[in-house]
Amino acid sequence: MWQLYHFPLCPFSRKVRLALSEKGVTHELTLVYPWQAGDAFFALNPAGRTPVVYQPEKKLTLIDSQAICEYFEETVDKSPLILGTAAGRAEIRRLTALFDEQFFADVTAPLMFEKMKKRLVYRQPPDSQALRTAMRLAHEHLDYIDWLTDTRRWLAGAQLSLADFAAAAQISVADYLGGIDWSGHDSAHSWYRVMKSRPSFRPLLAEKMEGIPPPRHYADVNA
Amino acid sequence: MWQLYHFPLCPFSRKVRLALSEKGVTHELTLVYPWQAGDAFFALNPAGRTPVVYQPEKKLTLIDSQAICEYFEETVDKSPLILGTAAGRAEIRRLTALFDEQFFADVTAPLMFEKMKKRLVYRQPPDSQALRTAMRLAHEHLDYIDWLTDTRRWLAGAQLSLADFAAAAQISVADYLGGIDWSGHDSAHSWYRVMKSRPSFRPLLAEKMEGIPPPRHYADVNA
Ligand SMILES: N[C@@H](CCC(=O)N[C@@H](CS)C(=O)NCC(=O)O)C(=O)O
Ligand SMILES: N[C@@H](CCC(=O)N[C@@H](CS)C(=O)NCC(=O)O)C(=O)O
Repeated sequence: MWQLYHFPLCPFSRKVRLALSEKGVTHELTLVYPWQAGDAFFALNPAGRTPVVYQPEKKLTLIDSQAICEYFEETVDKSPLILGTAAGRAEIRRLTALFDEQFFADVTAPLMFEKMKKRLVYRQPPDSQALRTAMRLAHEHLDYIDWLTDTRRWLAGAQLSLADFAAAAQISVADYLGGIDWSGHDSAHSWYRVMKSRPSFRPLLAEKMEGIPPPRHYADVNA
Repeated sequence: MWQLYHFPLCPFSRKVRLALSEKGVTHELTLVYPWQAGDAFFALNPAGRTPVVYQPEKKLTLIDSQAICEYFEETVDKSPLILGTAAGRAEIRRLTALFDEQFFADVTAPLMFEKMKKRLVYRQPPDSQALRTAMRLAHEHLDYIDWLTDTRRWLAGAQLSLADFAAAAQISVADYLGGIDWSGHDSAHSWYRVMKSRPSFRPLLAEKMEGIPPPRHYADVNA
């Protein structure tokens, strides 16, 4: 069986979990915190990052969430997530990269650093200036999601795709850490409620990261 | 004809130029500096980043170097760069992401900031501590390339692939900015000499960025 090395608040692991679940690929989860990972994890991934997917029978290791999603896209027919024409697939990959790189750098990574890593590793309080900047940038990204959902059925076009899961994965981590304020973002909010109520999302919302409680609304699919 | 919006020291634009050239896709270059781009460029790419590929006849815009490379991989048969089995392609994409993200973050981006952006935009001298850190991290990445080239014919396996071009694109920008020291990295150095002498590489090596002269050895395929 496939094994996924992850931790609950890693947005790239969430993206992979959502894709595997949508595609019906059964897998086991192994918890690993990159900042305290041992030699065994570095032997699997010299870059020391999550997610990693491992198949013991085939001795196959897959690294990097996008490489992992492309692999399952190529090998599992069920629920295509990078679908359509070549131009349509390029649009899915553009948006996936936008959320993986820019939403992550602007919003998710600073929130993870200030509210997760400082708490668990450095035992320091968060810097409120950094949190304000992340939340301001979150509004800009949500504006863009408003625009996308106002003009398209799903983020990348007429079909549900990996772009929706990549965006929802980042947002769900930011939301867990108290960084998402939906006011003024009705379209994006409706889209996110739909994402949240998919069966693939349930296990993620039920999971807690030790020592860091999520806000009350986090797992409520109507909130 | 395809148009590529780029600037000479953008490593992701270099990766795309190498891929297009290897695949025989003719294209025109349009120079754009993201930090002083106008509305026309932001209309093309709201994220304001290079590279962007545009096809005026089809009104097709492609954004993100990996999405661009995947598009041409899917639509042009010549010289496959993401090739082999699904597992082999996952390895190519893992390494491509490693160079695009980690080599870039550790080495290319700090060098670009200290030696290009501070010179052209902020009119400040580089910070020597930041340069030393980038060069130390470059050695770690070159150690990994030594290991790959000692155990494989090309970076991702038996075949030349996008991983080689992604790595060479990052290294060539770092080398232009004086950040690469090959001492102790004979295997990586031989591999890079082979990459440098490919016809697809020549136009890149001949190009200069205004106000920033490359070191003497930079364009010498034997150095
Ligand atoms: N592009 C990678 C990013 C992976 C990544 O940044 N993972 C983070 C956790 S969310 C990590 O392991 N960071 C630890 C580190 O970089 O040392 C992917 O999509 O898998
Ligand atoms: N993942 C993107 C990265 C693109 C990127 O970071 N481009 C840089 C130039 S090398 C840029 O435009 N930076 C300006 C900015 O981020 O505002 C790709 O592969 O195309």
